[in-house]
Amino acid sequence: MKLATQDNGTPDGALVVVSADGTRFLGASDVANTLQAALDGWATAEPALRALADRLAGGEGESASNLALAAPLPRAWQWLDGSAFRSHGELMETLFGTEPPPAGRPLMYQGLSHQFLSATADVPLPREEDGIDFEGEFGIITDFVPMGVTPEQALAHIKLVVQINDWSLRALAPIEMKTGFGWVQAKPACSVAPFAVTPDVLGDAWREGRVHLPLSVDWNGKRFGDALGGVMEFGFHDLVAHAASTRSLCAGTIIGSGTVSNSNFREIGSSCIAERRGIEMLDEGKPRTEFMRFGDTVRMEARMPDGGVLFGAIDQKVIRG
Amino acid sequence: MKLATQDNGTPDGALVVVSADGTRFLGASDVANTLQAALDGWATAEPALRALADRLAGGEGESASNLALAAPLPRAWQWLDGSAFRSHGELMETLFGTEPPPAGRPLMYQGLSHQFLSATADVPLPREEDGIDFEGEFGIITDFVPMGVTPEQALAHIKLVVQINDWSLRALAPIEMKTGFGWVQAKPACSVAPFAVTPDVLGDAWREGRVHLPLSVDWNGKRFGDALGGVMEFGFHDLVAHAASTRSLCAGTIIGSGTVSNSNFREIGSSCIAERRGIEMLDEGKPRTEFMRFGDTVRMEARMPDGGVLFGAIDQKVIRG
Repeated sequence: MKLATQDNGTPDGALVVVSADGTRFLGASDVANTLQAALDGWATAEPALRALADRLAGGEGESASNLALAAPLPRAWQWLDGSAFRSHGELMETLFGTEPPPAGRPLMYQGLSHQFLSATADVPLPREEDGIDFEGEFGIITDFVPMGVTPEQALAHIKLVVQINDWSLRALAPIEMKTGFGWVQAKPACSVAPFAVTPDVLGDAWREGRVHLPLSVDWNGKRFGDALGGVMEFGFHDLVAHAASTRSLCAGTIIGSGTVSNSNFREIGSSCIAERRGIEMLDEGKPRTEFMRFGDTVRMEARMPDGGVLFGAIDQKVIRG
Repeated sequence: MKLATQDNGTPDGALVVVSADGTRFLGASDVANTLQAALDGWATAEPALRALADRLAGGEGESASNLALAAPLPRAWQWLDGSAFRSHGELMETLFGTEPPPAGRPLMYQGLSHQFLSATADVPLPREEDGIDFEGEFGIITDFVPMGVTPEQALAHIKLVVQINDWSLRALAPIEMKTGFGWVQAKPACSVAPFAVTPDVLGDAWREGRVHLPLSVDWNGKRFGDALGGVMEFGFHDLVAHAASTRSLCAGTIIGSGTVSNSNFREIGSSCIAERRGIEMLDEGKPRTEFMRFGDTVRMEARMPDGGVLFGAIDQKVIRG
């Protein structure tokens, strides 16, 4: 089942169910006005939403060609972003002389959740000098998760899978990171691909709490990376359990994978500029690739192994804010 | 004007206006159902709420003696906590050999905002071994703040002042801090004193974006600290501008001062156990004071110079969660 949020001018938009190919939709207001409301009562909402998905599979629904879509959750009560790809972490540790995290502990920060940009919204940022960068990620959305769940229990709380661009300002990131307090200025609002899908949509590509698909990233129309999501050191269920160790998680908690990265990044590319610059620093002594300029575009999409539409594409432009 | 949120069983409660002494209230549903809604439309809500406050000043209103109060915002879209008291920061730097933050840059992390506990709610935490600690703080709540405001502009966006207990788990904090990613497990939900007040209520005690009042903290009924809020290195307007450097802030953003601390902490005490333990480590070579046990209570209150009620008191117990 594929869910999306129609931009109807309200802060949370209107929940819609989308056909598997993303071309048709049915409004879901009889079930829940918003995706947050559906997640708040998922046990009853899910079967009713699946009934709408069945009708779409039977050919019903309106054309989605003129449907204005917001992020699946245009705002959320909680956004926690991991950094679960070791090849990315190891590269950063090599470059900055930082220590690896303690074994068995995922890296995670709490980020801005009061705004998630749509997949096609312009991204207003104040200064090019801040080092504007994208981060292609996979993510999940939970229902309510009680404090203290095990990773095995956590798996059942993963209700939706999403694709995220975690906008980052690299000139500010190390300054904030050095304080130990995490990022505020370095992490403005993220963007999210239009369709949030239930894990079953991924078929075999959803295994061990991981998305076993490549994330294709294009910067200004040129392929930048095709890293695979399946090599996360920790699965999303581990990240959920980590987050819920000392707190319960509200329904609608979004958890990110961190920038998708593979150890053969020299061949397949990267999901953020910082990683490519890091490789250049290692290989050539200094970074050659500059960060983004106002007017630059980034496109990110993961498709099914047969080429079918999955989350839809993020395709957006950075502008002076 | 004093605002509070009645716990009516809904996630956001019901907005009420409270008399200056906190003994009477009037429901505010004709103006806004929730404090979040009032902040979303503050320009029109404020005068209507002040009209209710005037009626309370004239003797109207119901007795608040049986009014069940939630936190002013039982959940918020954004919670950013500073660490703006240098005496606390310097002590921690001395103890842990960490560097001071870059000059002119406030310390700030993004914390859990999907739940704020009421002032009298039991605080469920999983393990005493996590090093359960309180942190007495002042805080503010903003309306919508555009990206890039100056500190001077930011001052006008501070609509309410609050008093916060930022619960902290000290065994986890340094592990998370060392990663640079900030705190997730070490910072469970905060508690907030019942009354959110407009800055004018503080009179002369609100100057330079700071609360010039002592915060009295009692642990298990014994006075633990009386640190003054006025010596913040950065005022709340500076913290708002720092937070809004690369993002706009949603209405209802809560920003905290960090644990209230004064350089004469040996005389006046501290607002968290970690600080007292730090002083003991410096003075006696090792910490003598243990962290909290299940069943322990903490009480925090700041009163007006004439002894009048201000935010009301936080008074709560830690329990096994």
